[in-house]
Amino acid sequence: MELNIGMIGYSFMGKAHSNGFRQLPAFFPELGVKPVLKVICGRNLDAVKDAAETYQWEEYETDWEKVIARDDIDVIDICTPGDQHLPMALAALKAGKHVICEKPLTNTLAEARELLTVAENTDKKTMVAFNYRRVPAVALARQLIAEGRIGEIYHWRAVYLQDWIIDPDFPLVWRLEKDKAGSGPHGDLNAHIIDLALHLVGDIDSVVGADTTFIKERPLLEAVDGGLGAQGGEQMGQVTVDDATMFLARFQNGALGTFEATRFAAGRRNYNHFEINGSKGSIAFNLQKMNELQFYSRDDEDHIQGFREIIVGEGSQPFMGAWWPPGHIIGWEHTFTHEFRDFFEAIAQDGTFSPDFAEGTKVQAVLESVVDSAATKTWQDVPKI
Amino acid sequence: MELNIGMIGYSFMGKAHSNGFRQLPAFFPELGVKPVLKVICGRNLDAVKDAAETYQWEEYETDWEKVIARDDIDVIDICTPGDQHLPMALAALKAGKHVICEKPLTNTLAEARELLTVAENTDKKTMVAFNYRRVPAVALARQLIAEGRIGEIYHWRAVYLQDWIIDPDFPLVWRLEKDKAGSGPHGDLNAHIIDLALHLVGDIDSVVGADTTFIKERPLLEAVDGGLGAQGGEQMGQVTVDDATMFLARFQNGALGTFEATRFAAGRRNYNHFEINGSKGSIAFNLQKMNELQFYSRDDEDHIQGFREIIVGEGSQPFMGAWWPPGHIIGWEHTFTHEFRDFFEAIAQDGTFSPDFAEGTKVQAVLESVVDSAATKTWQDVPKI
Amino acid sequence: MELNIGMIGYSFMGKAHSNGFRQLPAFFPELGVKPVLKVICGRNLDAVKDAAETYQWEEYETDWEKVIARDDIDVIDICTPGDQHLPMALAALKAGKHVICEKPLTNTLAEARELLTVAENTDKKTMVAFNYRRVPAVALARQLIAEGRIGEIYHWRAVYLQDWIIDPDFPLVWRLEKDKAGSGPHGDLNAHIIDLALHLVGDIDSVVGADTTFIKERPLLEAVDGGLGAQGGEQMGQVTVDDATMFLARFQNGALGTFEATRFAAGRRNYNHFEINGSKGSIAFNLQKMNELQFYSRDDEDHIQGFREIIVGEGSQPFMGAWWPPGHIIGWEHTFTHEFRDFFEAIAQDGTFSPDFAEGTKVQAVLESVVDSAATKTWQDVPKI
Amino acid sequence: MELNIGMIGYSFMGKAHSNGFRQLPAFFPELGVKPVLKVICGRNLDAVKDAAETYQWEEYETDWEKVIARDDIDVIDICTPGDQHLPMALAALKAGKHVICEKPLTNTLAEARELLTVAENTDKKTMVAFNYRRVPAVALARQLIAEGRIGEIYHWRAVYLQDWIIDPDFPLVWRLEKDKAGSGPHGDLNAHIIDLALHLVGDIDSVVGADTTFIKERPLLEAVDGGLGAQGGEQMGQVTVDDATMFLARFQNGALGTFEATRFAAGRRNYNHFEINGSKGSIAFNLQKMNELQFYSRDDEDHIQGFREIIVGEGSQPFMGAWWPPGHIIGWEHTFTHEFRDFFEAIAQDGTFSPDFAEGTKVQAVLESVVDSAATKTWQDVPKI
Repeated sequence: MELNIGMIGYSFMGKAHSNGFRQLPAFFPELGVKPVLKVICGRNLDAVKDAAETYQWEEYETDWEKVIARDDIDVIDICTPGDQHLPMALAALKAGKHVICEKPLTNTLAEARELLTVAENTDKKTMVAFNYRRVPAVALARQLIAEGRIGEIYHWRAVYLQDWIIDPDFPLVWRLEKDKAGSGPHGDLNAHIIDLALHLVGDIDSVVGADTTFIKERPLLEAVDGGLGAQGGEQMGQVTVDDATMFLARFQNGALGTFEATRFAAGRRNYNHFEINGSKGSIAFNLQKMNELQFYSRDDEDHIQGFREIIVGEGSQPFMGAWWPPGHIIGWEHTFTHEFRDFFEAIAQDGTFSPDFAEGTKVQAVLESVVDSAATKTWQDVPKI
Repeated sequence: MELNIGMIGYSFMGKAHSNGFRQLPAFFPELGVKPVLKVICGRNLDAVKDAAETYQWEEYETDWEKVIARDDIDVIDICTPGDQHLPMALAALKAGKHVICEKPLTNTLAEARELLTVAENTDKKTMVAFNYRRVPAVALARQLIAEGRIGEIYHWRAVYLQDWIIDPDFPLVWRLEKDKAGSGPHGDLNAHIIDLALHLVGDIDSVVGADTTFIKERPLLEAVDGGLGAQGGEQMGQVTVDDATMFLARFQNGALGTFEATRFAAGRRNYNHFEINGSKGSIAFNLQKMNELQFYSRDDEDHIQGFREIIVGEGSQPFMGAWWPPGHIIGWEHTFTHEFRDFFEAIAQDGTFSPDFAEGTKVQAVLESVVDSAATKTWQDVPKI
Repeated sequence: MELNIGMIGYSFMGKAHSNGFRQLPAFFPELGVKPVLKVICGRNLDAVKDAAETYQWEEYETDWEKVIARDDIDVIDICTPGDQHLPMALAALKAGKHVICEKPLTNTLAEARELLTVAENTDKKTMVAFNYRRVPAVALARQLIAEGRIGEIYHWRAVYLQDWIIDPDFPLVWRLEKDKAGSGPHGDLNAHIIDLALHLVGDIDSVVGADTTFIKERPLLEAVDGGLGAQGGEQMGQVTVDDATMFLARFQNGALGTFEATRFAAGRRNYNHFEINGSKGSIAFNLQKMNELQFYSRDDEDHIQGFREIIVGEGSQPFMGAWWPPGHIIGWEHTFTHEFRDFFEAIAQDGTFSPDFAEGTKVQAVLESVVDSAATKTWQDVPKI
Repeated sequence: MELNIGMIGYSFMGKAHSNGFRQLPAFFPELGVKPVLKVICGRNLDAVKDAAETYQWEEYETDWEKVIARDDIDVIDICTPGDQHLPMALAALKAGKHVICEKPLTNTLAEARELLTVAENTDKKTMVAFNYRRVPAVALARQLIAEGRIGEIYHWRAVYLQDWIIDPDFPLVWRLEKDKAGSGPHGDLNAHIIDLALHLVGDIDSVVGADTTFIKERPLLEAVDGGLGAQGGEQMGQVTVDDATMFLARFQNGALGTFEATRFAAGRRNYNHFEINGSKGSIAFNLQKMNELQFYSRDDEDHIQGFREIIVGEGSQPFMGAWWPPGHIIGWEHTFTHEFRDFFEAIAQDGTFSPDFAEGTKVQAVLESVVDSAATKTWQDVPKI
């Protein structure tokens, strides 16, 4: 089965998604789905043309509405800043496409709800690209929890730490502008660890949080590269998003949770770390060492208890049979291959995919409750979705 | 110079303090102070007699007021549960003794303030036994901060995780009774990381927190050993303290902080862990690997930046010249030797010691603000001391 | 520039090489070389047809001589067992092809010398696929040494540990047959760490070694998968290679070296680990954590010395600018992309590539000296190449 | 029961032994043995007088023969350089004392044999102070092996790395003089890991090794401190011992072993590291993290296999019940307390102690075989003891 993809956006996520599509058939041939990199779309003609060539897309386009209007496109993949997710996803759903949307789903809960209403009235599949669920070690964590290995969960403790804007001279890229990005590390990074918390622990009842902006003014942007690099000029502009947001949570099942996202943790480049403590054991994960999972079991005999460093790579572990022999690690980009594998399987077999727009909306509800809590300085109940 | 010690309490802390006193002259001979283990005091005659023999005290006593009344005692060392700190410390100060008091200083802020008022009107030295300031790696962390190596501080992130009561059958020891212990891990463990935060980052302006008690009933106590072990019977009693308390903080200098203490983190026996992120670098510490300090410097050249694992053991590092050649690690109990070393130096040279009762009261103010915050579900300003 | 590839072999290495070819143009577009996956060759028609489809080769073939005879093929890539390297590589060189050959170059030093003689009389480029030189962390290690950061080298200490045949029921695959594989972990794994030693430390003067075969008989092979997995039957056969080989070495520059390869190190799936100690610092690497490099510098101030854990991922570090932002790790297979990148650059610009067949022959000389030493129980001088 | 100790030597080991004696009764009161620090002996009157005071010995003495001649001394503890072990230990045995001797037992195998002959004809207890057997993690390793948890042993892999003389200006202390020290890191450090190998794996059949001296001349010594520090003058002298010695071994049970000791491994202060691989699992240990033991079990279910980091501190683990609650680590010096505990128990109960002089002689046989092997450049059979 071939699925024709139209992708909007060609920067960091565009590069990563393109790679995921290309890798899929070579490593998961038994799935029987071949994504066709049909058309890539971006506003800058030269840049999108280059991207099409490098990332091996058949065609390029500068008008996203034209991409969505095409009859030969099966899946729309939205890799743009958050302020454009709503119109694009709405249009795609209305045009009868399956939709992949980068996280966070939207910049506000209201937008997410609007989108969800439409999504729920279509038979097309939706996906929010919370790719870290499909790090094999994270999928293994979920499996261990399902197997009852850590028992009843008492604690969730997560941070997502980066440091790429710690230099005050780093310029005002779109991710630092509220009208485009919606928020700073809160929507960018907390969104990820909220999604993991909902996935691994369960629903969140209430939250209290706080944020701050350490560097309030930065040089206006002059140039940007395909990664997260950029250069600023002499004029200054206002940073309108948070530099760091932290919050506490109470889960429905009685567990306590802590969350923190920042772009000011020197030396922590991409440190998405969580630990879960339960009545029978504990699990810990660190994205920078994403092929490893720490697992402690109270079922072990007393004198040999200790955190195991499981090097995830066995055929018996999620996704890993597709790659290399044990001990030959995989990289960050493989998470995209895995999420596309499962999404396309849902399309091919008319199954379900998680996280879909409903789950993406739940993340949005938590994000917005934290923002409300920071404004009111009190605990907030998380709205039900 | 000899200093005669009278110690009240002979259990876990009594064992640890006794050892610190005994070790001091052999490893810090140049200090010229010899603590004399004069009298140990406890309510149970047989037990205190045994303790006196094992821990090498000259005399034993069952009435603490008699110990304080003795003219030949220079220093009173209080190692009892928190509800007795106020009367004992008050009496000791009034009797003109130097006073060492185990942490937390008292069970309430009001008690601490009462004690502080008396302490401020004496020329005797006071000490709250926050021994983790004098883990050599922590003292080195403080030195690195003072040297400006991590720049302006943005983040403090600390947890103190234990698991010794995770078994629901573990009995109702005094540490689980509010009238004796004041609180659970909040006063026991958060007290430590609050003290470290004040020491390493600075004053805290406001906090918001939450706590929970996972196991609400436990077997009544039947027997106890000198460590933290104990055995329960068939009758059940109410747990009246928290099993876990977490909170967020804003520091005066603009830094954000997270704190969490629990006794329900499976596999984390004594995991006092903090990380500090600043504009120029980061520092991380873990008590279970207390001879190591993680340090990241943005001053390093770009392609060789990374967290250094400093194995603290050089003569150039705090306290370590007294012990063994580099690479020969020291143990947890050495922190007591170090705090006594500094306290006795303050006595011998009429200098200052930190943390004294004023600083202990500051910790109490934060602890109590968190409790208030949990009750009101809003942020609380921390009272100034 | 397009380069047409003909690859012989389609199993584990075939899968890895195919991927490297496919990935290259998307991540190193500025190189301007596009490898065309022209024809894949293997003896089993159905299997090679499947492989061609999965790995995206244009054509498949069962007769390797036909592949080499084709005019439209620029590069022959040999991914077969070692006993076939000599005839295939000889034929390819004589047909005027550039040649990539999996390691070890041949099964004996005599074969390697024969091949080298031919290679030296052609203007075509040769490559022995010692891919671990181009792990970015290893390339960084080489750079740090070249920058003088560890000074004069005193010690090389390397192990390559695996455990995939630790189960005595694991069957007699070709890698356990001397006539096909030449040797066991010695040629398979020691070859890698010898190559790294020559690359990072320099030439080896003399060696002494020993080997053993722990499990002398195994079930004959019944089925095999594309990785290292396999199933045995009821009949038993003789293991004719080593299960483990260890040796000591003296380098020309006076450094001492230890080497060890085994397939019987429980829990070490693919543990290629080396440490280098020099007069100014040390470096350590572990393939299972291949995005990390440990570096210790005596140039650091005394109280902050410690092994840095450098997470290799900066644009300033070898190869990493091509992939993702810092902290987003890459996987094992990327080493192939990197070696093809450099090899094709050598072809495109008529430059040199290292390791070529001359360097591959040097590795062979060390391997064979170790075997001789094990037989004679004395130190052996390594023949000069 | 009281045991009167006479200790000869007051430097690094003297400090460590004194501490072990002092700590013993406070932490192992149930043993019922109290070592009395009766007399300390050294050639320098002022220094030994100071040591007596600091380390709390009742008396001091400058003539070791007088110490041995005293009727009131039960145990002679020899902490001098290796060239004096033979006369002192012989005299002590002949005087009917129990004898503790620092490692290595002697500087030559012939001396050790001479001593052993006398020792075997006395009913007094002997001990070679290989203290690392009684690191709790090492004792736990031994227990796990005895429990069959790693099965049949295939590999022993040990290094003992230090760097304290890496600076060429470090002076010619006695440890660098062959006539006093016997050898360099070979007798000092390899002795330790040989003892551990014999203890954990079994007897060694044959060895082959090599050594080197990187820095052949050093400043003559001017001053020395109690640790390993020292200062040199302007005149130079010859280094007459090895700077590094490495060797391979075949064990009687068929296992292969590698050993290496050096004082030139930058950043490795006291890195005594071993790994054991067996048919059912693996164990790894690092003295710089001596409260931790790595353990891998093939008995674990496939998808949760991984090296456990066991933090040794449970009451169920060797020696740890005596100290602090779990997670409160102990230091290097506690190994001495443990070895004295077991030795005094052997005395008190007329039991056996291991390692005694017979086992110390076995270590000597391996050490000397390695030296012979380095001289002859061939494998050497280890003489039976």
